[in-house]
Amino acid sequence: MSITVVGSVALDTVETPAGRNEEGLGGAATYFSLSAAHYAQVHLVGVVGEDFPQAHVDLLQAHGIHLEGLERVPGRTFRWAGRYHEDVNERDTLDTQLNVFENFHPRLPEPAREAPYLFLGNIHPSLQLEVLNQANPVFTALDTMNLWIDTTREELSQVLARTDAIIINDAEVKQLTGRANLIRGAQEVAALGPRVVVVKKGEHGCLLFAGGTVFSAPAFPLENVVDPTGAGDAFAGGFMGFIAQKNRLDTATLRQAVIHGSVVASFVCEDFGPAALAALTAEGIAGRFEEFKALVDF
Amino acid sequence: MSITVVGSVALDTVETPAGRNEEGLGGAATYFSLSAAHYAQVHLVGVVGEDFPQAHVDLLQAHGIHLEGLERVPGRTFRWAGRYHEDVNERDTLDTQLNVFENFHPRLPEPAREAPYLFLGNIHPSLQLEVLNQANPVFTALDTMNLWIDTTREELSQVLARTDAIIINDAEVKQLTGRANLIRGAQEVAALGPRVVVVKKGEHGCLLFAGGTVFSAPAFPLENVVDPTGAGDAFAGGFMGFIAQKNRLDTATLRQAVIHGSVVASFVCEDFGPAALAALTAEGIAGRFEEFKALVDF
Repeated sequence: MSITVVGSVALDTVETPAGRNEEGLGGAATYFSLSAAHYAQVHLVGVVGEDFPQAHVDLLQAHGIHLEGLERVPGRTFRWAGRYHEDVNERDTLDTQLNVFENFHPRLPEPAREAPYLFLGNIHPSLQLEVLNQANPVFTALDTMNLWIDTTREELSQVLARTDAIIINDAEVKQLTGRANLIRGAQEVAALGPRVVVVKKGEHGCLLFAGGTVFSAPAFPLENVVDPTGAGDAFAGGFMGFIAQKNRLDTATLRQAVIHGSVVASFVCEDFGPAALAALTAEGIAGRFEEFKALVDF
Repeated sequence: MSITVVGSVALDTVETPAGRNEEGLGGAATYFSLSAAHYAQVHLVGVVGEDFPQAHVDLLQAHGIHLEGLERVPGRTFRWAGRYHEDVNERDTLDTQLNVFENFHPRLPEPAREAPYLFLGNIHPSLQLEVLNQANPVFTALDTMNLWIDTTREELSQVLARTDAIIINDAEVKQLTGRANLIRGAQEVAALGPRVVVVKKGEHGCLLFAGGTVFSAPAFPLENVVDPTGAGDAFAGGFMGFIAQKNRLDTATLRQAVIHGSVVASFVCEDFGPAALAALTAEGIAGRFEEFKALVDF
């Protein structure tokens, strides 16, 4: 089954202890799409400027990603620049230029409206509502961030009430619920709407709350993290991609989907930008899935 | 097979969001012993003052813990007081009175010298060396802390060279090795001596590096943490206790031992002091072990 993703497409300049990547292909919708495309048909809805390199369009198309919803408008593409610390779990944002993203209003072409799976990337909740009003999904998942939790709580609540799953990090759970205990916090997030709650904990893996059970998924033990940019978005792509491929929403499928998200996220960290995702094969995914099995076996 | 543990026996005053426990039974060797005693014979080596309540001695003896090595000397028992934050992963130490612990030199009675398993609790590395010089273990595990890593690196290195396993938290791995990446850090810790490295990550579970493999163990998802004091020491007790019970050191046994450590540590957090450990049954341990299986199943 197909997936529609709405979110940012960007040019990222990233410095990490491993080196520097200048104006590389980035953005949440990019990482999501290149991950999910390993599992299912993906419709990308976003916006770029006149300066967006054709080579990036070609790369996305080469991976079978449907780009009818990727608008190209006058102006410059969204740019983000960041520097990771020696401990790559920490980073500083050096520059953010919204550019054409500032006045973005998502418009879903017909096939994107019909996709049964929908991922609302981390954009203003009022834009997420605009997307929901155009689409007709059977399963909607949501990303958000501290800024929207702080400043647009009312709109965010409306979105939450209409979503099936939220993918959120541990700090955001605490911020959204005021609960120091992550387990209670996740239960309170579920009470806001999404019956599936995925809590990302970076290098500590993630927790899935679904079907009345808790699932603890490890992070892959990487000795050498080159660039963690986009790992969270790739996680969401692997998660939603696997669910769309199976077209099932039972707890066992959701648990395996979390591992597939973790698999593609681990690959992303091993190279700059989405390079590792673009080079990834079905054999690579299957092999690392088995490594995750061995990692938790007792 | 039997285990000898050397470490603190204390009276703890603890405040947590759930309440207050005044001058309760505490100390690393106490938590270790009450955990390990569910699996194996335990010889406790430590020191208390004249004020140490007989009821605590009775409790330890009621759990079959051998106390020939628990000296009672003139003076007051070691006291610690701490206050946990709303987020119980954070705490402030309010008071530390070493008292009789200040001049402690461990003396192992004959049965403690002969125990094949030895746990060196978190005491000055020169005291840990004194213990090693009196004992004849087949498997030695070690706890340490930031203070000794900072101030007694040379003695700590001598201890590490003579131990088989270290149980250490993630911050200490970074401090000991200077590595921001935990996987590389753990490998460098192993190069200092211990072929088994257990990295505790609190609410994020722990990692076991042994036999050329990495094992990721989850923490038990507790909705209500009453008092986390001693959870790390209880973990070590369950880990060593299970290994001593099986009298095996293969990787599969070590992985199961990590889960048993996590099982008893999870119980500790559910009540003040070692109360939950004292009330724990074999059925309780077996039941939670199965819950850990379900927690990571995919």
